[in-house]
Amino acid sequence: MVMNVSGYATKSAKDNLAPFSFTRRDPRKDDVVIEILYCGVCHSDLHQARNDWGNSAYPMVPGHEIIGRVISVGPKVKRFKKGDSVGVGCMVDSCQHCDACEEGLEQYCEAFPTFTYNAVDRQDSMPMFGGYSEKIVVSDKFVVKIPKGLDLKAAAPLLCAGITTWSPLRHWKVGKKSKVAVIGLGGLGHMALKLAKALGADVTLFTRSPGKEKDARRLGAHQVVLSTDEKQMASVKRKFDLIIDTVPYKHDVNPYVPTLALSGTLVLVGYLGPLEPALHTVSMIMGRKAVAGSVIGGIAETQEMLNFCGKHGITSDIEVIKIQDINQAYERMLKSDVKYRFVIDMASLKA
Amino acid sequence: MVMNVSGYATKSAKDNLAPFSFTRRDPRKDDVVIEILYCGVCHSDLHQARNDWGNSAYPMVPGHEIIGRVISVGPKVKRFKKGDSVGVGCMVDSCQHCDACEEGLEQYCEAFPTFTYNAVDRQDSMPMFGGYSEKIVVSDKFVVKIPKGLDLKAAAPLLCAGITTWSPLRHWKVGKKSKVAVIGLGGLGHMALKLAKALGADVTLFTRSPGKEKDARRLGAHQVVLSTDEKQMASVKRKFDLIIDTVPYKHDVNPYVPTLALSGTLVLVGYLGPLEPALHTVSMIMGRKAVAGSVIGGIAETQEMLNFCGKHGITSDIEVIKIQDINQAYERMLKSDVKYRFVIDMASLKA
Repeated sequence: MVMNVSGYATKSAKDNLAPFSFTRRDPRKDDVVIEILYCGVCHSDLHQARNDWGNSAYPMVPGHEIIGRVISVGPKVKRFKKGDSVGVGCMVDSCQHCDACEEGLEQYCEAFPTFTYNAVDRQDSMPMFGGYSEKIVVSDKFVVKIPKGLDLKAAAPLLCAGITTWSPLRHWKVGKKSKVAVIGLGGLGHMALKLAKALGADVTLFTRSPGKEKDARRLGAHQVVLSTDEKQMASVKRKFDLIIDTVPYKHDVNPYVPTLALSGTLVLVGYLGPLEPALHTVSMIMGRKAVAGSVIGGIAETQEMLNFCGKHGITSDIEVIKIQDINQAYERMLKSDVKYRFVIDMASLKA
Repeated sequence: MVMNVSGYATKSAKDNLAPFSFTRRDPRKDDVVIEILYCGVCHSDLHQARNDWGNSAYPMVPGHEIIGRVISVGPKVKRFKKGDSVGVGCMVDSCQHCDACEEGLEQYCEAFPTFTYNAVDRQDSMPMFGGYSEKIVVSDKFVVKIPKGLDLKAAAPLLCAGITTWSPLRHWKVGKKSKVAVIGLGGLGHMALKLAKALGADVTLFTRSPGKEKDARRLGAHQVVLSTDEKQMASVKRKFDLIIDTVPYKHDVNPYVPTLALSGTLVLVGYLGPLEPALHTVSMIMGRKAVAGSVIGGIAETQEMLNFCGKHGITSDIEVIKIQDINQAYERMLKSDVKYRFVIDMASLKA
């Protein structure tokens, strides 16, 4: 018995999102059926809705920052019960037996993870639809618990923006003595500031916008460096153990490399494409510096991040919207006019 | 009393090297005076003699793979005595108090290390001349001991080619379970194969030349992958923890990134310049992969590498030449016609 679900979809790269009815699979033994309460709006929703990466399939229901309540669980599900507050992020499945999956790094699954939307199910090859909808059916291994005390709507962006910045902070072992910089103050950037601060690091924001200083400091930055100002850039030469580059479009990475400390790493988490202007090796070689990439995080580390956020009272700064306003929200995102994440109140779907 | 020294120098980017007489400084209290027996010929000697990097000063006496015998020592020198077999590599001084120097990583000195030639002395601002000469005067902190049993002439290239590949092998913790690849089989590449093998790693050579397979296996490669063959490249997808890229000219790094294992690193040790074609971030992000740079190594790790080579009987494969043949040797290097390092027998200077 498949279930009928309402949501919002786009039918091509050029269409707006509009009401859409579709079906979800009959729950399997390890499935959790979730009523979606809130869904964050990620920049990659926009990229995929408009086929910016050239791999979009339609109709597409975007959304992978999903917060909901458990409606029912399959007979094999032990960790969740009806009424639990849960989250679903960017992935809903993976091969579960390659080295990456066995390390709990399903995002790097050698057979490629199954993303929450714009993907097909590994078992029945049916298209997967995302969180801009009323319900979702997900294998329990890919469902996480939302700690008590966190505001549910403001927790939604933790499922992508949060874990995308948490994973490199943990992998590169950021702690009390670390010097961390964040490039760009958007959805990812503002989470990076909060998480790095809470981990005890000395935190700097690189921005091109002088107007962002006050907010950056409120969000956790100890220092704000205007990346267009050569003097300010020179003042942080050789400073950072880790730079998290959240910029989602083509940009010059070269000016940041000299601000890395000996053996430091600049990790790209927001940009898919060629590094142009070309990365120059001299600054990398003279200081054993690295440029790396990282994508979201594994399920276990997503739960770890949520527990950390529960303990430290960390959520995203959000603007709640109705699903009917999603197209305007996309236009505002293109102008970076959001502080710092739109979250859809899914109750609006019934309006 | 400065000392008169004979050697070979070039007087401009367009001149050949020719006999040259110059003076070395009066030895200071911590100086070691060394009779040069052998000097390796590094690709960077050629780059600097011909001003390929745009920073050459003339007259220039190249040479930074120096093996010699101690003639005398200053009153403060405790570690060396007359008659000792010693080596001098790419550096002869550094600030000695920045974080990098205090970590024993003088090559990353924040005030820039003083290179063995094409540099000026930190104390008297006099030009430094390299190892294509009969004697050199060097502070004892930058002199290393050559373990007994190593063939002195074949040990010369360890001072640059050896340490340049050793340092990343150690920094990225290569050991018995590691899978290491080396790009390019030249002076650096052949040392990387030998050292990685002796460290217990599973070693692969990437090459564009099918004819190099036999030699590569003799030097330590367990596998040889023809980088021009897509099938062979696909067969090593996601394999390597570390790739040491020794190629000294512009080349496309992108095809190698997918051959890195999860969280693996490709480290550039031979190329100074822009990464063109542009490095693409998708392969880096989908597997948390890094592209890094590394240059030579610190004095303590140079001594560690020499001791390791002494224990394992590792030296370079060399072709001994007379100083009078240096210009032809440069021409042959440009054609990669050397297996795998020229070493000048400095006795020829007196011929």
